[in-house]
Amino acid sequence: MPSLSPVIAEIRLAVRTALADLPEGSTVVVALSGGADSLALAAATAFEGAKLGVRVRSVTVDHGLQADSDAVATRAASTATALGLEAGIVRVEVGGEGGPEAAARDARYRVLKGAAADAGATAVLLGHTLDDQAETVLLGLARGSGAASLQGMAPVREDDDGVRWVRPLLGVRRATTRAFCAASDLEFWDDPHNSEERFARVRVRDRVLPVLESELGPGIAEALVRTAEQLREDAEAFDEMIHETIEDIVEHAEAGISVSVAALAANPAALRNRIIRLVVDSEFGVSLTRLQTLEVARLVTDWSGQGPIDLPECSAARQGGRIVFTAR
Amino acid sequence: MPSLSPVIAEIRLAVRTALADLPEGSTVVVALSGGADSLALAAATAFEGAKLGVRVRSVTVDHGLQADSDAVATRAASTATALGLEAGIVRVEVGGEGGPEAAARDARYRVLKGAAADAGATAVLLGHTLDDQAETVLLGLARGSGAASLQGMAPVREDDDGVRWVRPLLGVRRATTRAFCAASDLEFWDDPHNSEERFARVRVRDRVLPVLESELGPGIAEALVRTAEQLREDAEAFDEMIHETIEDIVEHAEAGISVSVAALAANPAALRNRIIRLVVDSEFGVSLTRLQTLEVARLVTDWSGQGPIDLPECSAARQGGRIVFTAR
Repeated sequence: MPSLSPVIAEIRLAVRTALADLPEGSTVVVALSGGADSLALAAATAFEGAKLGVRVRSVTVDHGLQADSDAVATRAASTATALGLEAGIVRVEVGGEGGPEAAARDARYRVLKGAAADAGATAVLLGHTLDDQAETVLLGLARGSGAASLQGMAPVREDDDGVRWVRPLLGVRRATTRAFCAASDLEFWDDPHNSEERFARVRVRDRVLPVLESELGPGIAEALVRTAEQLREDAEAFDEMIHETIEDIVEHAEAGISVSVAALAANPAALRNRIIRLVVDSEFGVSLTRLQTLEVARLVTDWSGQGPIDLPECSAARQGGRIVFTAR
Repeated sequence: MPSLSPVIAEIRLAVRTALADLPEGSTVVVALSGGADSLALAAATAFEGAKLGVRVRSVTVDHGLQADSDAVATRAASTATALGLEAGIVRVEVGGEGGPEAAARDARYRVLKGAAADAGATAVLLGHTLDDQAETVLLGLARGSGAASLQGMAPVREDDDGVRWVRPLLGVRRATTRAFCAASDLEFWDDPHNSEERFARVRVRDRVLPVLESELGPGIAEALVRTAEQLREDAEAFDEMIHETIEDIVEHAEAGISVSVAALAANPAALRNRIIRLVVDSEFGVSLTRLQTLEVARLVTDWSGQGPIDLPECSAARQGGRIVFTAR
């Protein structure tokens, strides 16, 4: 018996670990573009799903953005069928805000969500790799919003509709998915968008990461991913703490919302600033900048009778023992 | 009356804000290399110190690492004298562990500490700029230790001996300190070490940051500094929380230390993992990796009767309701 290729073993293990949490008899949907990442994911999920009694469907979204997109989708679906999956193709028209990249992503998530609902699936599996995660962290660096911008993509996230989005390959290098395909005789598709330098992500991949690797040493992608993992934990801990106290310290008023000064003062800055941002975001749909947040915080920490602070959509003022946010 | 140059105003304001916390009649020590950053800092501190009744001394450390180092030190000190400061030069012999860069830094901090003690100074002011902070964050990315490696340098830090280290210029660009010197007719020294590519920091400055700026857009240095500020807040909040509970959940034993499983389980992962690292570090002087930390955490979160875990200098095992760390 030939020994199992280590790259196949690595990816199967990653998938097995991700599927372990699902009840037997579950159905999962694999998002399949036909690229090496999603093809390796589909193949490993077919293999592990069969062993675990998990039903696996693949869904390929054809955005129609490229000339040969239907041929690509058809080939991906027939490869999936050959792997023993139930394979579907959904054609979408892409338009809307935020450019073609964002519109295609939104459309893709909508389709996958619909497919998960149709199939009664417990989870949707996405093929993002360690390299994708490292790129996401670097893109977040440019935003400068601390842990929030550097925590990358969640390995498991349940959305408001109860769909569980799972990324089994976040610890696997992109090169490993290609090696998996080669070792499995799976022909994958190279998305030409992956070399279009107008996309910030492509520039990060082709120009930023290589410079970081050569100047700061190899292992930088892994370091970025480790950092993201820890910052995600940090953010979750703060979310949990805030969730436990927020209802006790906030009061809703006719034209706004207010927060107890004493409670804000008793919390460390990390929590105080997050509470301020959360309150304004939930009430007025506005994401405060760091400078705006700190100016509001000074109503608590450096109180010397300041007047109201103008913020987008609202103003903040200290009244008695409360910081009152009022719609403008 | 000629109007004040905006770069002079910016740096004076930064220094004024930093000095505002000190009692009148305080003495501060400015670390003066003679480079643009520290020269601008010394000049602005001379000006603001005179207004606030703060006595200002400059200390120039001559490491003797470069041929003309005594001439550089002498020129820096005489510039400081011309600015109205009491200026001192301390010559040190550099040797020791971690290469000349680390040894010189250690020696410099020792000298500054001694000078602060001699002068009865409340604070030592350091000339690190926003650019230095951004470089520090990028160097931390390669370590991959989450918030701990990305929080950069503290704007104010009091060490165990009660010396307060203050960095007034962390929000000021390096170019602004050069413009300050030009506008003030101050001739500064260009440290040739600043262009030696064998130093990781120099490579970050000359190769990494420019690529990030061109690929992710300008403002990346400021974004890195904003992120560091927020991650520092986060880290301080966690430190505070751990400090409040650690004594209640830890027990010292003859050959080690133990922590309550229930307490570790009740905390979110961000706190649990930090407690594990802190306990092992304080007891055995060992800094656990992320993987080691997670393996110990699984004794709490995924308990299935695992055996003891070998760690550097110690082992960890679950015994009854406790995680016990024993010296090896």
